[in-house]
Amino acid sequence: MIDGSMQHFPLTLDRILDHAAKWHGDVEVATAGEGGAIGRVDYAGLHSRARRISHLLAGLGVQTGERVATLAWNSQAHVESWYAIMGMGAVCHTLNPRLTPPQLAWMLAQSGARILIVSADLMPLALKVLDDAPGVARVFVIDGEVASPDFGSAQIAALEPLVAQGNDDFAWGAFEETAPSGLCFTSGSTGAPKGVSYTHRSSFLHTLRLLQADVSGITSADVVMPVVPMFHANAWGLPFAVPAAGAKLVLPGRHLDGASLARLIGAEGVTIAVGVPTVWLGLCDHLDATGTHLPSLKRILVGGASMPPALMERIEKQLGIPVQTSWGMTELSPVGTFGVLSNPERDAAISGRPALGMDLLLMDERGDPLPEQRDVEGRLHVRGAAVIDRYFGQERSATTEDGWFDTGDLARIDRQGNLMITGRAKDLIKSGGEWINPAEIEALVGALPQVSLAAVIGRSDVKWGERPLLLVELREDQEISDAELLASLRGQVASWWIPDAVVRVDAMPRGSTGKIDKLQLRTAYSGN
Amino acid sequence: MIDGSMQHFPLTLDRILDHAAKWHGDVEVATAGEGGAIGRVDYAGLHSRARRISHLLAGLGVQTGERVATLAWNSQAHVESWYAIMGMGAVCHTLNPRLTPPQLAWMLAQSGARILIVSADLMPLALKVLDDAPGVARVFVIDGEVASPDFGSAQIAALEPLVAQGNDDFAWGAFEETAPSGLCFTSGSTGAPKGVSYTHRSSFLHTLRLLQADVSGITSADVVMPVVPMFHANAWGLPFAVPAAGAKLVLPGRHLDGASLARLIGAEGVTIAVGVPTVWLGLCDHLDATGTHLPSLKRILVGGASMPPALMERIEKQLGIPVQTSWGMTELSPVGTFGVLSNPERDAAISGRPALGMDLLLMDERGDPLPEQRDVEGRLHVRGAAVIDRYFGQERSATTEDGWFDTGDLARIDRQGNLMITGRAKDLIKSGGEWINPAEIEALVGALPQVSLAAVIGRSDVKWGERPLLLVELREDQEISDAELLASLRGQVASWWIPDAVVRVDAMPRGSTGKIDKLQLRTAYSGN
Repeated sequence: MIDGSMQHFPLTLDRILDHAAKWHGDVEVATAGEGGAIGRVDYAGLHSRARRISHLLAGLGVQTGERVATLAWNSQAHVESWYAIMGMGAVCHTLNPRLTPPQLAWMLAQSGARILIVSADLMPLALKVLDDAPGVARVFVIDGEVASPDFGSAQIAALEPLVAQGNDDFAWGAFEETAPSGLCFTSGSTGAPKGVSYTHRSSFLHTLRLLQADVSGITSADVVMPVVPMFHANAWGLPFAVPAAGAKLVLPGRHLDGASLARLIGAEGVTIAVGVPTVWLGLCDHLDATGTHLPSLKRILVGGASMPPALMERIEKQLGIPVQTSWGMTELSPVGTFGVLSNPERDAAISGRPALGMDLLLMDERGDPLPEQRDVEGRLHVRGAAVIDRYFGQERSATTEDGWFDTGDLARIDRQGNLMITGRAKDLIKSGGEWINPAEIEALVGALPQVSLAAVIGRSDVKWGERPLLLVELREDQEISDAELLASLRGQVASWWIPDAVVRVDAMPRGSTGKIDKLQLRTAYSGN
Repeated sequence: MIDGSMQHFPLTLDRILDHAAKWHGDVEVATAGEGGAIGRVDYAGLHSRARRISHLLAGLGVQTGERVATLAWNSQAHVESWYAIMGMGAVCHTLNPRLTPPQLAWMLAQSGARILIVSADLMPLALKVLDDAPGVARVFVIDGEVASPDFGSAQIAALEPLVAQGNDDFAWGAFEETAPSGLCFTSGSTGAPKGVSYTHRSSFLHTLRLLQADVSGITSADVVMPVVPMFHANAWGLPFAVPAAGAKLVLPGRHLDGASLARLIGAEGVTIAVGVPTVWLGLCDHLDATGTHLPSLKRILVGGASMPPALMERIEKQLGIPVQTSWGMTELSPVGTFGVLSNPERDAAISGRPALGMDLLLMDERGDPLPEQRDVEGRLHVRGAAVIDRYFGQERSATTEDGWFDTGDLARIDRQGNLMITGRAKDLIKSGGEWINPAEIEALVGALPQVSLAAVIGRSDVKWGERPLLLVELREDQEISDAELLASLRGQVASWWIPDAVVRVDAMPRGSTGKIDKLQLRTAYSGN
């Protein structure tokens, strides 16, 4: 006892909103509603309202560690519910409305949530889910009116009147920092979805990583609009990082078209807009068509999918602002690397560098570290304070014995430490005993002006084991022959990488997060 | 076991240098030596050299938790020793060479250090200390030659040859994140010095706080020069934060005059220079006299004492760069608040806002929180992840029951959450039952062009209990009458705050950290 000591300060997420309410109490959270209406609250108000929801949930018997589910868009009410659930030590289980009712019911059965918080316009979906989710006893509706009577054994009520009358005299945070705070199932484009359990500590440390000047660089002078949904890997951690920095938070609700986003950015003075690449295509098209300018916008942060170089160039040219790339996964809370703001070199292929608290290692197919880690391709493994150790409901560790999590991605790291994702390990095609990386072929064909989307899968072949097959979706009113498509690859890849055949599809099948669903393509075209 | 889990990632300081070596391995640490020579190493090299020192110390039987002392300037060799000691789980006890030999010997007896690492030019001081420090068995000399034979029972050897021949095959980090990592005694201008024990966790979280865009905002593109010494509250945490960000570190060694600093800033491309206000006075004078420009410098970060507004204005005008103010204490690891970079309003009186992980509370004299926390003066208390709980060797907590540490400072916090330190509680003068704050009078008199330094202390008074006495040190070749000095206060403070008498001193007594030593002034002039 004589060494002296520093204060015990548990890294729990309730402290983030406590901090925002005390030190940035009059900074706003603005939410886009229907017909251009904007809902507003400040952090002091949001803090009080979130505690009232905790009070309500505690009155319904919600216990520490219990899962409470949400099925909702990015809105003030969703953020309030999220902090209410986590602040009281329960677990916020975010559901993705782009999944099917059976998938959602299965996830609810896994998490055992008794209470479900739903955006009003998602109630038709929720009612279908409830059919197969007998465990759900209470439904609270946010962001709209209650249009349905109670359903089976589930009581349905609007949340807002209960918040308005509620009592915010509720103490947050009487639990360990290693307590679980969130649950998010991966999209599961291969096999059953797997649940990732976030802890207070892991998301708090993720927040501190995000706030570094060379990561998100968010300051109290910023106005941040996360278009990436809260049900998709915590909206990349922004509902934590933005209040933590004392920045204004702008939530787009459900309308993510170019016109809606442009209006919101202009009206609220957004400085940093965050979302998957395709969202910004719609914004650019709208700005082009209307001649609108967005002078407040300082940068666009992209992730969740590879960034098409042409789109990056278009945004940077048209808006005159930098695009910051990133790479992450649900299992990483979700940010792995961020393009480094202070680095003048930008490239759509570079996903940035890891900041303190995140480490990367390239391994070979057998799971041994590559002797040389720079300028070679390997299977990307990660380790860190916000990286999964074990999936929800599983006993087996998700890491190697040395604690490395296999991302399933193929990657290169250059001499400066920049990460480039080069493909998915499971998408590799083995032809004549050698590997073909479909991602490299897709990038080349996808860069053709006539092509909207390209996918390459392996097709069974008696002689070679597998041979690559190219699938393309063309842009509207565009034409290109099979020969021209394949000719674009000559000299760019090894000749035996060039696909044997081309298939045209009207619309690529997509998964719940918007990525091309290769599982569907393989089922239809691989010949297995 | 079914909830799933995130990875265990202990927040230990060895990971910071591991990260820098792996991800910013070719970024340099440059140290100013004698005669303009610059020593250089990169983070990969520094990492290897630090492990060799750990290997050496382990060979001498250094155990986890054991204190190893340093008496050294800011240099590469000191940073290597610091990481070597902390990385192996021992405790780096930094000694301040501005203290007296008996004080240093007393501190060594407290910490029980058996090994002392000393800058060559501090060996004369070290030998005097060894006289009274029989526990020290080994002395390693850095940054120069060994000029002394062994002393008493202490063996004296140069460190460099042992590092050069050393073996870096040493595994760091096999201890808990709550293990102690550092020990620093406060300057103790009142009463005996008290030791602050830092832990790996507290300094790691302090580093993450410092790296926020709205705190130090250090990026991998920066070149940071900490003029503030490592023996003074960890050089404000920069030996951790700079490698963590992958920025270049420039160490000024022992020569802190304006000409030496200007040469180093210019030669090494320093972008952020960090130190107490008076250091920059010398730099400004040198630039003035020589017409030198420092184009690389982007900002100056000050702390450790209140910032004279005239000096701040001079720096900002002469160098054309912002001055970032801060406030901290040894007990806070040491940063409390930082001027917010994204806030366009700057003022020498504003010490900034607390970032996530640090909280402030104003209390009254009885230790009750003030009902209104904004725009009123109170006694500043703090709470956070890098704040002291208990001093070294003491059983009693250093905090209130609610966990708040009393800083001893008087402060105001404005509506925007900006902290202004208004005085020291123990310096307050009680006159006729009412309080007089000397700091306010000192700021007014200190702003006069003729005055170099001003101090106000209480002098015993039969009628009023205490009355204020003004002590001034004038600038060279300047004159001002007592009547003019006191007249400057009329209309600025209450009439009864105006001192009854003025004393001229040739040189204000200073403490070991350069602050005015009021204890000496009181002994000589208070009449008690």
